[in-house]
Amino acid sequence: MTRDSRFLKACRREPVDATPIWLMRQAGRYMPEYRALREKHPFLEVVKSPALAAEVTLQPVSAFDLDAAIIFSDILPPLEGMGLGLTFEKGEGPVLHNPIRSAADVEALETPPAEEALGFTLEAIRLARRALDPRGIPLIGFSGAPFTLAAYAIEGAGSRDYALAKSFMMGEPGAWRLLMEKLSTVVGEYLLAQAAAGAQALQLFDSWAGALGPADYREHVLPFSRRAIEIARPAGVPIIHFATDTAGMLELIREAGGDVIGVDWRIELDAAWRRLGDGVAVQGNLDPAALLAPWSALEERARRVLEQAGGRSGHVFNLGHGILQQTPVENVRRLVDFVHDATRR
Amino acid sequence: MTRDSRFLKACRREPVDATPIWLMRQAGRYMPEYRALREKHPFLEVVKSPALAAEVTLQPVSAFDLDAAIIFSDILPPLEGMGLGLTFEKGEGPVLHNPIRSAADVEALETPPAEEALGFTLEAIRLARRALDPRGIPLIGFSGAPFTLAAYAIEGAGSRDYALAKSFMMGEPGAWRLLMEKLSTVVGEYLLAQAAAGAQALQLFDSWAGALGPADYREHVLPFSRRAIEIARPAGVPIIHFATDTAGMLELIREAGGDVIGVDWRIELDAAWRRLGDGVAVQGNLDPAALLAPWSALEERARRVLEQAGGRSGHVFNLGHGILQQTPVENVRRLVDFVHDATRR
Repeated sequence: MTRDSRFLKACRREPVDATPIWLMRQAGRYMPEYRALREKHPFLEVVKSPALAAEVTLQPVSAFDLDAAIIFSDILPPLEGMGLGLTFEKGEGPVLHNPIRSAADVEALETPPAEEALGFTLEAIRLARRALDPRGIPLIGFSGAPFTLAAYAIEGAGSRDYALAKSFMMGEPGAWRLLMEKLSTVVGEYLLAQAAAGAQALQLFDSWAGALGPADYREHVLPFSRRAIEIARPAGVPIIHFATDTAGMLELIREAGGDVIGVDWRIELDAAWRRLGDGVAVQGNLDPAALLAPWSALEERARRVLEQAGGRSGHVFNLGHGILQQTPVENVRRLVDFVHDATRR
Repeated sequence: MTRDSRFLKACRREPVDATPIWLMRQAGRYMPEYRALREKHPFLEVVKSPALAAEVTLQPVSAFDLDAAIIFSDILPPLEGMGLGLTFEKGEGPVLHNPIRSAADVEALETPPAEEALGFTLEAIRLARRALDPRGIPLIGFSGAPFTLAAYAIEGAGSRDYALAKSFMMGEPGAWRLLMEKLSTVVGEYLLAQAAAGAQALQLFDSWAGALGPADYREHVLPFSRRAIEIARPAGVPIIHFATDTAGMLELIREAGGDVIGVDWRIELDAAWRRLGDGVAVQGNLDPAALLAPWSALEERARRVLEQAGGRSGHVFNLGHGILQQTPVENVRRLVDFVHDATRR
């Protein structure tokens, strides 16, 4: 039943009865259920408690007619298993306490098996699957991509210009290669383990890939994203490759791999799909800020995304990046229903 | 003599003896001369003191063989003249104390003549011209573009997602239009006044345009950038139209106008130029982070930009965004000389 879900069919570019929709960061602060739970439990505690993570995973699919759930976690926990101390500071976001600043730091990084370092998320996947299966809703697993993890590991926190990460990449290519090899191993095996635990699709989040120019991406990132995807491929589930700010190098994102390419809102969906080619499904690409607008303005922008998808098989409706925490719940409900109603065949 | 400078010839797509180079934010914290002056004077004091602003403008063209100077200022002072209180908080960047949150706020905005509201920069231009003319170095004037100013006026400070600005744009299209009309008047007249004061080229900085998708840019921004450019056009000097994160809509940036289009590093320069067409000069597009790398890595990336420009008339070498404050001075010197030496005809 789940295998024939709209979402998985669209990932395989098979015809669907209506366009599937899920929303990046759909379990999040915009939901009162989520805020209530987070009042009692800090972020990382939720991530690391399988029962809580599974509960939060289910919140949005219970509240809305979404076509997929995504396991609740963060992109950074793989770094913790490699030896970097991770905390989430209130109002500041994630901080790594011993960022990578030298080749020796890279050599010291461990690459433990996912079951050992990230067992909590694998267990959350098993729990969430048990709850989702009777409802026929597929579950997506995910990981940060090697570049985004490397940039975070070097910067130690969010960054505006990624000056430290890029300097390291450009100035120490040998250490960079070793770092990316270790990360692609960890990421690939983590994705594979998530599928083994029950994830029916996998998303690679390269949220920061757009910080690079095409030539640097091609040389210093693409081979490692491809390697992570190749390691996960034997799982036999669709792999979604998502990056933002990459309208200048969509072809390279495609070349790195993925059955579905996630596109942000900075390019028209039809122009993006033309460049990606027919052999791939496409996920996107509503501006998350549209969900803050009055319904008529939101509807106009959602309709444009659907028009550009043009009824092709292989479109998964999503935002171009994560949902904003100021988003009114009612707008989410209306958007989800609108996408189904407007595309019903 | 200045009229025949490499920089102005390249802006007009005339053949040059070597590719001209200047660097966005070339007068800035990476220079010891600048830091020494800033120890005695806060940022806005330098901007508002014509003699100091002119002095800082000259610092980089005295230190390096740059082909143009750009008047020292910031993109936000036009907002101050319109009635928004602007301060620069240490470590936090600019803050507007009464940001725009309603249609009434927009109606209350004033549109004073540039000579009244921004006379300090016009006077700095006159002073800098006097010093630059004997050296044959052209002077660039500039302004923030209507969208970037509108977004700042609404957010009140820097933003990661521009949620307030986009909500206002999508949700209150009438008030947005009035805001953008007022801004395009102020910006266009400010650029015109800078040319009258002596600026020999003008750059419109739309640093935040890439926050929008193409359809929103086309409808809510393009007509107003075009209007600002049209107001300034009678000055008869080249207009550079610069935006970042716009690889998905370069054609629209071109459509809005400008004799030179500034391109960031997120797209290959030759791919960008192909899309922009032959009828326009192109400025860019080295990743500013390359200046933090060892010389061999920097040289490789600078050479790639030149190869992609392919010796065409109409290339102005620049970074894809402002120079980073950690940049070693020696790398700037070597880059400037390399661009000239590698392209000498």
